[in-house]
Amino acid sequence: MLYQTIKQIGELDRKAMEEAQKRLDSLIKPPGSLGVLEEIAVRLAGITGKAKPRVQGKSVIVMAGDHGVVDEGVSVAPREVTVQMMQAMVNGVAGIGVLARHAAARLVVVDVGVLTPVALQGVVQRKVRAGTGNIAAGPAMSRDEAVQALEVGIEVAQSEIDAGSNLLATGDMGIGNTTPSSAILAAFGGYTAEEATGRGTMVNDEVMKLKISAIARALAKNRPDPEDALDVLAKVGGLEIAGLAGVILGAAARRTPVLIDGFITTAAALVAFKLQPKSRQYMIASHLSGEQGHRLMLDLLDLRPVIHLQMRLGEGTGAALTMSLVEAATKIMREMASFDEAGVSDLEEDKILK
Amino acid sequence: MLYQTIKQIGELDRKAMEEAQKRLDSLIKPPGSLGVLEEIAVRLAGITGKAKPRVQGKSVIVMAGDHGVVDEGVSVAPREVTVQMMQAMVNGVAGIGVLARHAAARLVVVDVGVLTPVALQGVVQRKVRAGTGNIAAGPAMSRDEAVQALEVGIEVAQSEIDAGSNLLATGDMGIGNTTPSSAILAAFGGYTAEEATGRGTMVNDEVMKLKISAIARALAKNRPDPEDALDVLAKVGGLEIAGLAGVILGAAARRTPVLIDGFITTAAALVAFKLQPKSRQYMIASHLSGEQGHRLMLDLLDLRPVIHLQMRLGEGTGAALTMSLVEAATKIMREMASFDEAGVSDLEEDKILK
Repeated sequence: MLYQTIKQIGELDRKAMEEAQKRLDSLIKPPGSLGVLEEIAVRLAGITGKAKPRVQGKSVIVMAGDHGVVDEGVSVAPREVTVQMMQAMVNGVAGIGVLARHAAARLVVVDVGVLTPVALQGVVQRKVRAGTGNIAAGPAMSRDEAVQALEVGIEVAQSEIDAGSNLLATGDMGIGNTTPSSAILAAFGGYTAEEATGRGTMVNDEVMKLKISAIARALAKNRPDPEDALDVLAKVGGLEIAGLAGVILGAAARRTPVLIDGFITTAAALVAFKLQPKSRQYMIASHLSGEQGHRLMLDLLDLRPVIHLQMRLGEGTGAALTMSLVEAATKIMREMASFDEAGVSDLEEDKILK
Repeated sequence: MLYQTIKQIGELDRKAMEEAQKRLDSLIKPPGSLGVLEEIAVRLAGITGKAKPRVQGKSVIVMAGDHGVVDEGVSVAPREVTVQMMQAMVNGVAGIGVLARHAAARLVVVDVGVLTPVALQGVVQRKVRAGTGNIAAGPAMSRDEAVQALEVGIEVAQSEIDAGSNLLATGDMGIGNTTPSSAILAAFGGYTAEEATGRGTMVNDEVMKLKISAIARALAKNRPDPEDALDVLAKVGGLEIAGLAGVILGAAARRTPVLIDGFITTAAALVAFKLQPKSRQYMIASHLSGEQGHRLMLDLLDLRPVIHLQMRLGEGTGAALTMSLVEAATKIMREMASFDEAGVSDLEEDKILK
């Protein structure tokens, strides 16, 4: 199923993009003057194959998992916080609960790899494994488990699309998950542990040293093969990261735009990109996180984030916040009039910079 | 009335800001991890005097006026476009029509200085004068007319506030209005015409030369006194710019946050700031425009824009787009739970970077 999904992912629809660009240039504004909104509008046309797509439903998909590497003392939050935060999410009082509601998006919280049993109403139960192994000492999971977690993501994404959502956002929950994300960045980008590691939830120097050491050992011990994305994911990744990569692939296969959030979801985006380079075109980078290394990831993906708000919470908060801007881009296309339609005099072409 | 309004503008409420900061630090997220949203939330507390303000109504106020300096050939659009665009705005098909509706904001279009009679249903008729004089040859308007136009802005802002809006955004319409805006920047900032002038609606090199020359002559001929904001406004400003400065002062006097848009509304913000430095604290800079010089203005105001989308349309489009983010900041304050409330384990303080 994973390979079928990967095969389904196609190129952007160039004809719809040209049509969208032509329409944008006819609207009552100087050409290009809506900047990034216009770029988003054109890309949405390419993704959906429609010059004037409409956002009909929105979903934020949060994948949750735990991390064996927390044993190395890399996190400032106790491990039980993963489940406590999932509870707060389904109760609507976590950051993503508030911002998904603000965006009028459905919030889907999935247990794909939490350590303990999660008996919370409203959480989608798709546990592949109870937490990863400690990557500083061995692989995070088996290759088969990585495939299973990817497929959970594909299925959840496609079930949201089947239920009417045509704009997805990715979010993460998992105490310790900046550590495997940094390891993924280091593996794919050829960075050292130092270069790829940031302060996460603002760890102090002492914890930072433990984190860099754990990542360095994870890379040395597991020797992930950057040419084999599944190998990287299984050896130094995480179950929620695998699930999120699956969400992205599942969205791309169904020609649905998917918003990437911060450091963890962008690690998942890197995995998706390495599994299928075409998937990149379906991603919209929402924001530039305050986490060191996020920019390095976005550079590897050649994606430019829409907003720069120094956020570093994760959970999908930046992606949810950007939904309103993506929707605005579709409304520009659908609701603005052209010079002809509005009876506005043309600009004097001979005075415009070409 | 202008001077009474200016006198009414007070300091931010430090106690409400401290209370807001304390609440933010108690919420279930690493401290500061919502970045600029948290800064906005704290400033809104200072502006409104309430730690948890709620956005109850939103208005985008577009001031429209014409410019005698268009005679110098500084614009790529014919002058009649001012009225045509006002028609498109009240019909909801201009950029700001679409984005104000997307933000669920009321759109108020005001004729404060259009050259021709404007017989459009839905436009607020407050014409002070039929277009400005050509600033390259003499003053834009008299000092008394500048005061009248400022007072129109104050009245419109306060009538929106009286009608229930507690978040305002500024927008402009006026063919040729980047030219007086550049002149205002040059006058207040001590910049040359070259430094202060950008391409507006993407004028070519030939028009650019005419524009720089017109601004240089406007400064040489009128010798606006940077220590006297009314002098600068009357001599090299515009009627819509005066109206917008009034909107900002009117909002500040009523402790209401007001979003600044692009180059023209920021020129108005500079005027408001020079009339009453305390007014700055009530402004939220929405976006960084693609227009050269906008950053110089924001630096003079010491304001940091929230979004960077390469927009350069004006009309209030960037400000309207940012309304959703400001509203998100208030919801974070109102709807997120604290660690205690949600039963989430505290972060381990001794591991956090101080």
